[in-house]
Amino acid sequence: MNWEQVWLHYRSLKNHSNSKYFQTIALTHTGKSKTFDKALLKNIQNELMVSAQKFFSLEPRMVDDKAQATLSLTLDAHANLPFEGYTIQEKDDQICLISSSAQGLLYGAFDLIRRVMCEEDLTSLTVTEAPDKHFRMLNHWDNPDGSVERGYSGNSIFFQDGHLIMNERTKDYCRLLASVGINATVINNVNVKDEAIAFVSEPYLVKIKEIADLFASYGIQLFLSLDFAAPMDLGGLKTADPCDDAVIAWWKERMQIVYSFIPHLGGFLVKADSEGRPGPFTYQRNQADGANVLAQAIKPFGGVIIWRCFVYNSQQDWRDTTIDRARSAYDYFYNLDGKFCDNVILQIKNGPIDFQIREPFMPLFGKLKKTRYLLEVQIAQEYTGQQIDICYLIPWFQEILHMRTYCATENDTIASLISLAPQSGGGEGIVAVSNIGDDPNWTGHDLAAANLYGFGRLSWKSDISNNQILTEWCTMTFSSEKKVLDTIKRILMMSHPALEKYSAPLGVGFMVTPHYHYAPNIDGYEYDKWGTYHRADHMGIGNDRTDTGTGYASLYYEPLARIYNGRDTCPDNLLLFFHHVPYTHVLQNGKTVIQHIYDTHFEGYEDVLFMRSLLDSLDGFIEDLPLSRMKERMKKQIYNAREWRDQINSYFHKLSWIDDEHQRKIY
Amino acid sequence: MNWEQVWLHYRSLKNHSNSKYFQTIALTHTGKSKTFDKALLKNIQNELMVSAQKFFSLEPRMVDDKAQATLSLTLDAHANLPFEGYTIQEKDDQICLISSSAQGLLYGAFDLIRRVMCEEDLTSLTVTEAPDKHFRMLNHWDNPDGSVERGYSGNSIFFQDGHLIMNERTKDYCRLLASVGINATVINNVNVKDEAIAFVSEPYLVKIKEIADLFASYGIQLFLSLDFAAPMDLGGLKTADPCDDAVIAWWKERMQIVYSFIPHLGGFLVKADSEGRPGPFTYQRNQADGANVLAQAIKPFGGVIIWRCFVYNSQQDWRDTTIDRARSAYDYFYNLDGKFCDNVILQIKNGPIDFQIREPFMPLFGKLKKTRYLLEVQIAQEYTGQQIDICYLIPWFQEILHMRTYCATENDTIASLISLAPQSGGGEGIVAVSNIGDDPNWTGHDLAAANLYGFGRLSWKSDISNNQILTEWCTMTFSSEKKVLDTIKRILMMSHPALEKYSAPLGVGFMVTPHYHYAPNIDGYEYDKWGTYHRADHMGIGNDRTDTGTGYASLYYEPLARIYNGRDTCPDNLLLFFHHVPYTHVLQNGKTVIQHIYDTHFEGYEDVLFMRSLLDSLDGFIEDLPLSRMKERMKKQIYNAREWRDQINSYFHKLSWIDDEHQRKIY
Repeated sequence: MNWEQVWLHYRSLKNHSNSKYFQTIALTHTGKSKTFDKALLKNIQNELMVSAQKFFSLEPRMVDDKAQATLSLTLDAHANLPFEGYTIQEKDDQICLISSSAQGLLYGAFDLIRRVMCEEDLTSLTVTEAPDKHFRMLNHWDNPDGSVERGYSGNSIFFQDGHLIMNERTKDYCRLLASVGINATVINNVNVKDEAIAFVSEPYLVKIKEIADLFASYGIQLFLSLDFAAPMDLGGLKTADPCDDAVIAWWKERMQIVYSFIPHLGGFLVKADSEGRPGPFTYQRNQADGANVLAQAIKPFGGVIIWRCFVYNSQQDWRDTTIDRARSAYDYFYNLDGKFCDNVILQIKNGPIDFQIREPFMPLFGKLKKTRYLLEVQIAQEYTGQQIDICYLIPWFQEILHMRTYCATENDTIASLISLAPQSGGGEGIVAVSNIGDDPNWTGHDLAAANLYGFGRLSWKSDISNNQILTEWCTMTFSSEKKVLDTIKRILMMSHPALEKYSAPLGVGFMVTPHYHYAPNIDGYEYDKWGTYHRADHMGIGNDRTDTGTGYASLYYEPLARIYNGRDTCPDNLLLFFHHVPYTHVLQNGKTVIQHIYDTHFEGYEDVLFMRSLLDSLDGFIEDLPLSRMKERMKKQIYNAREWRDQINSYFHKLSWIDDEHQRKIY
Repeated sequence: MNWEQVWLHYRSLKNHSNSKYFQTIALTHTGKSKTFDKALLKNIQNELMVSAQKFFSLEPRMVDDKAQATLSLTLDAHANLPFEGYTIQEKDDQICLISSSAQGLLYGAFDLIRRVMCEEDLTSLTVTEAPDKHFRMLNHWDNPDGSVERGYSGNSIFFQDGHLIMNERTKDYCRLLASVGINATVINNVNVKDEAIAFVSEPYLVKIKEIADLFASYGIQLFLSLDFAAPMDLGGLKTADPCDDAVIAWWKERMQIVYSFIPHLGGFLVKADSEGRPGPFTYQRNQADGANVLAQAIKPFGGVIIWRCFVYNSQQDWRDTTIDRARSAYDYFYNLDGKFCDNVILQIKNGPIDFQIREPFMPLFGKLKKTRYLLEVQIAQEYTGQQIDICYLIPWFQEILHMRTYCATENDTIASLISLAPQSGGGEGIVAVSNIGDDPNWTGHDLAAANLYGFGRLSWKSDISNNQILTEWCTMTFSSEKKVLDTIKRILMMSHPALEKYSAPLGVGFMVTPHYHYAPNIDGYEYDKWGTYHRADHMGIGNDRTDTGTGYASLYYEPLARIYNGRDTCPDNLLLFFHHVPYTHVLQNGKTVIQHIYDTHFEGYEDVLFMRSLLDSLDGFIEDLPLSRMKERMKKQIYNAREWRDQINSYFHKLSWIDDEHQRKIY
């Protein structure tokens, strides 16, 4: 096995003045120690020792007396700080880090390390930090056989041939997560199959407990994905009906067993009634019935059930224009607000379809008032280039977070709704589908690590600036040199807009190769059962989701409902999501739809060529290995962007019979 | 394991007057016995005993004296009959079967059994029969792991988990083939991989010899598919260049080894330089160089090399309209006529593309004058319904066989070219890609067995009537009842036209789901690298293969070149193969192209509904098991035909913006 340290490789900073803080370290705690506190403190100490060694070739001396330490860390249970929060203060060449929890110290230590790596002048530093979200979580779609569903970075780091893996890399995984503030993770695929069905039984629980303990020693709570049909698949019952007494009893007994092994297990994630997964609908029960049977069984042990809202009829007839997949989650869950047990948390995708490059936000946000929920995004680049094409997602996530839902006159953004601040509704965190695999660089494309890093930082605080994220990540990963920072930032910042330009236009989505979801196939899903259509014909294109169509636009609060319903008020980048319009319709940007399609597709490809030239300009500025890996992928991205450009332009030219105003080559 | 006897189940015919011939049997032979003659005679005797038992509950007595036998079989090496030919004569309640070879006796015995099964009155019967083709062959695309490429009838009957299988079913396989006159078979996939690469080495040759011996005892010669890169993959050489001395030596030694195990091996089938397979092009050699190195190595042992002409550049850029995959085989092989060793036989697909429901014949037929070749057809229904949809292919094969090439003023049909009759060129047989798997009924769909049976009968004689084939097969398989015969014949006879109606229109081909090749995906290959495009836009559709396009049409002899080049002379059913025409172009049938598309797709679906009603009418007339299997598949065929109808109609309506004259529902 062979893996790299990505943003934690702790480049040498010899002779830097910050070395003075790494002479003597004191690590003290007051009050009763909690479970795993000791292990956490030990890991913090290790991290500081390792970083001091790598930064400054120093071996700090551990001392007992805070006053004598150049760096003191104090766990003070009575400190007036939020859980997981911390303060750092520099005074007279001494740094004091204080927290009310070991977790807070861990995050503070990584904060300090980050500042050192970024060569910040720490003189008179005063920081008070706390996360704005309770759950900051990853979801891995890793299968027991070692494959990763929608994984673009090699195989699973957690599973191989039906077995669980725990080794040094597992620890580095924890360090990477902790360094950006991620505090929860689900290691197995929401599509639970094969051995994973039996993870809730003894032979597996022994090993899973070891992993959970390791995670806990980095402040990370382990969750598992669970098979809703386990009473049948594992228990041998004839039904998994959530209202059946035998099923209820089975789940109670099962949770008892699970928690006897792992008392600190966070709980379970469940994908039910979606894309072939079993669920309560099989038994004419609703989603709350399904979630609650599990929630009640797990309640005595303090666990939670995270229930995905990605529920839709995946057997739609393409001929039927009255069904709208975009409505599904809303239609299934809105009326259940208040019906879920208090330890059920819904997991809601950012958009109503499926992680497209552009979607409106899911209208459940702001509508659920009596239900706990999480925002789910995807850093695995399923539809956004699969870690072959560069697509830096953080600005897009920031845009999502800062969207106003209009559920209130203030604090109504999605960021507010999922934060710990006062809010309406019950949001309490964010989840990303992971982009991690066992490739040496963890994320396949070296630049895709920015999505992992950035997601962690955003999960900690929604209002951290994108520039700060990029500066931190680039500096820690590559170099603090201005040329490198400027170039990589520029590549990353233009990457999402470029991909949006060269793929499906104006928010219409999909047009990808079926199943694989990479590369264009304009009609690939047009006559299929998945509810993702573009409805293009000779005259026009787009889905009518207004009040003359499926009515989806009116699921939003005003003024959004009115804005989305109006053909001339709907933002251009969502026009074809909400409207079916003629190709000659003039956009707010002054262009016709067809000309916009041509222009963006020619531009998107040009953008990628420019990104290549930027990448090439890094020769000699960053290490050869990551650069050569990136260049290899760039070749494929150029090929892909060209296919998108030509297939989209050709398809719409053949269909619309309208020429490009600039007479560029359309095949 | 569990399998059925299909057309050899020998239904009881108690009290039939033909029983009188099965009282006493004499089986004699004159002259020197050839290898396997004894085994062959033994199998003939067994077949007669088994059939007598099943037909009439009789156990015929074997006698030495012909004069005392009600049925005598004589192998007379001096009989004035072609090899594999035979005569049968009935006189005074005695039947005499004579042949100059054991193979001929075998075919004669099965002929007799067939007549008995069909309850023919044998009084005064006089038959003289001989095959009109030398090679009558199956190609299995079976992989060592047990999978079958393009197999729609379960797994391989020859391989499992890397091992070869030989059991009672292998024997029944031989009986089925021999009963219709097939005399050669290739048991492993032309895409040679995994263990199959090593089939030419000792551990496998031992088992393969056993199988080859069994086959030989039913007059079937075994061939193997071979990996052109074996000198590297197996031999560890650095090249497979056919002109490299080490490679030449390696093949010689290898063939020596192979034939030391199996002296009667027919030879090898090779797919080279196609769809990723290695071949001579890798080394800037031509196809003759590639074939000849193998032919020279195998020559001392009497083997032949069958070299597939399915060679094309499978990396075409869809934007490039100058490349024409249809030309490939012609362009690669025409100039090599006369350059192949005399033990090389080219295997030429019926059409220039790939087993579509409708193609013109490959223009190499009639052009090759100094090269041996075989006609290759496919009874595995890759593009013709995958043994879910019914598609009886025999009338289509007959149409192909009876096409005139105009290479001469007479005897210029493809049937003539591949027959043993006087001919120009060097055709000498026919090959079918097999539709056999380990499903109990052998061919997945019970009616697909008609394609296997019919192919065998056609391979024996090109001019056998389709009505005869169907009568024989239906009677032997299901019943001699008129209602059954009429109904099944009607279903089968309408099946190919129906599928042609509801799938890609007017000879344009493809429009299938990529890779799977079942179900519609109109643009599935349109922007891909495989060279199979429909080139549809708002105004028209089709490939210009005339002299204004790729020039393919002029590869044919006159008058075909002129007929195909002319938009108004080209047959309707090939129009879009040869021409790009506007949707408003009027066909020879008086309809516009677009209206023809609509009409045929509505009709095709209606035809399938009618086929269902015919199938339903068989309730109580044939056995439940096959009928219920057929009904299950019919549901899928109806679904498929409806998808084809609606997707094609919708696609072309969206594109052309021309309404159906009859205002039927187009989505």
